[in-house]
Amino acid sequence: MEHKYPIEVCFTPALYHLYNNSENTVVIVDVLRATSSICAAIAAGAKKILPVATIEQAREVKKQGYTLAAERDGKVLDFADFGNSPDLFTPERVKDKVIAYSTTNGTQAIEMAADAKQILIGSFINLSAVTDFLINNPTPVLFLCSGWKNKFNLEDTLCVGAIAQKLLESGKYQTVCDSTYAAIDLWDMSKSDLMKYLEKASHRHRLKTMVDEQIIKYCHTIDLVNVLPAYKNGFIEKI
Amino acid sequence: MEHKYPIEVCFTPALYHLYNNSENTVVIVDVLRATSSICAAIAAGAKKILPVATIEQAREVKKQGYTLAAERDGKVLDFADFGNSPDLFTPERVKDKVIAYSTTNGTQAIEMAADAKQILIGSFINLSAVTDFLINNPTPVLFLCSGWKNKFNLEDTLCVGAIAQKLLESGKYQTVCDSTYAAIDLWDMSKSDLMKYLEKASHRHRLKTMVDEQIIKYCHTIDLVNVLPAYKNGFIEKI
Repeated sequence: MEHKYPIEVCFTPALYHLYNNSENTVVIVDVLRATSSICAAIAAGAKKILPVATIEQAREVKKQGYTLAAERDGKVLDFADFGNSPDLFTPERVKDKVIAYSTTNGTQAIEMAADAKQILIGSFINLSAVTDFLINNPTPVLFLCSGWKNKFNLEDTLCVGAIAQKLLESGKYQTVCDSTYAAIDLWDMSKSDLMKYLEKASHRHRLKTMVDEQIIKYCHTIDLVNVLPAYKNGFIEKI
Repeated sequence: MEHKYPIEVCFTPALYHLYNNSENTVVIVDVLRATSSICAAIAAGAKKILPVATIEQAREVKKQGYTLAAERDGKVLDFADFGNSPDLFTPERVKDKVIAYSTTNGTQAIEMAADAKQILIGSFINLSAVTDFLINNPTPVLFLCSGWKNKFNLEDTLCVGAIAQKLLESGKYQTVCDSTYAAIDLWDMSKSDLMKYLEKASHRHRLKTMVDEQIIKYCHTIDLVNVLPAYKNGFIEKI
């Protein structure tokens, strides 16, 4: 029998220590909006992304001259150049530049996973890029959902479910992880009308007051871009 | 508009600190098998249950003369009187006695929630007893799944989803919690053939080598007993 690689899903950074394994490829998912925006930025020609986890680090890299995209709780930090929405990462703003990027949940998850064998950036907008890479380069995979302030959230879970389902279908992967089954089943239940399903997602309701509905739709659209960003030595760039 | 009470779901004890709120009624769920067995013990006439979290505490209470039901990783501790399965709590063994009870996940969750306003013991086997009480005595509710070694598990999630769905249907409760929606949707998807759905649950596979299939079925059978155990001042007894 062909060897199959394991898939696990970690629903929030607060559980990451239970899954940590230096053999894993960790796929970070923060649909609203860090990993969607990172994919958009790389697709728009950004050379590299420097993820920064804290407000202090964001302030420091801005002083060092980086272009800074930074929010907390959905609001642009006053010393940042612009915020987190993927539409802000236009070629005019980012092409050939190194962009520093800080958010509430996403960059903290990236830094947390820094010692993994390989760190990939996943989202709905680059779903096939992630999936195809993992099918062509099979490896133990741990999906790390960024969550909302360390709590479980639906949108990251559904995105992970969509990717995990394709990995299992490829025949190269298997799972004994209850979180993986739950993510796949929730995706299966919602995929025919994702936006309707997500009406109930708490984070989306929270963001709705601050973020254009079009951005939320954008972040839940499959395969808008064909890039696979990876984190290595402190920076994110195309793999 | 009538006031509605909030429902939240905490998928594992490792996330409990994110939800902790002294106004909550916490419903502890450990389907395989602590909360199922506690319900069975109370239904069989046990006067009280003394939950103990560690092996050291279990050894200590045994020395003090308690009848001790204790396992770790599904195996009976050598100094215990019997193990964790609900069928062991017969009237012959437990009637009018105080039983000390220790398990891998369940009792640790109970001790963790010790400062909540009210702590109830929930399972499939006393589902209506829990649900009816919460509908007749509405209060902010936090469901605490015991999980498996601090990871998410399917069986606790489905049980919580079944209870939460009935609470929402009563019109007395509402939720903005993504975990609650996920639990309800997974329950909705699985309820027509729960045992078939749970074939994939990792904990069940793990237990299958140690636990009789009939016990697993027992723990997933709705309303076998009509008791509502509650934790107060260190002991569990009928509310």
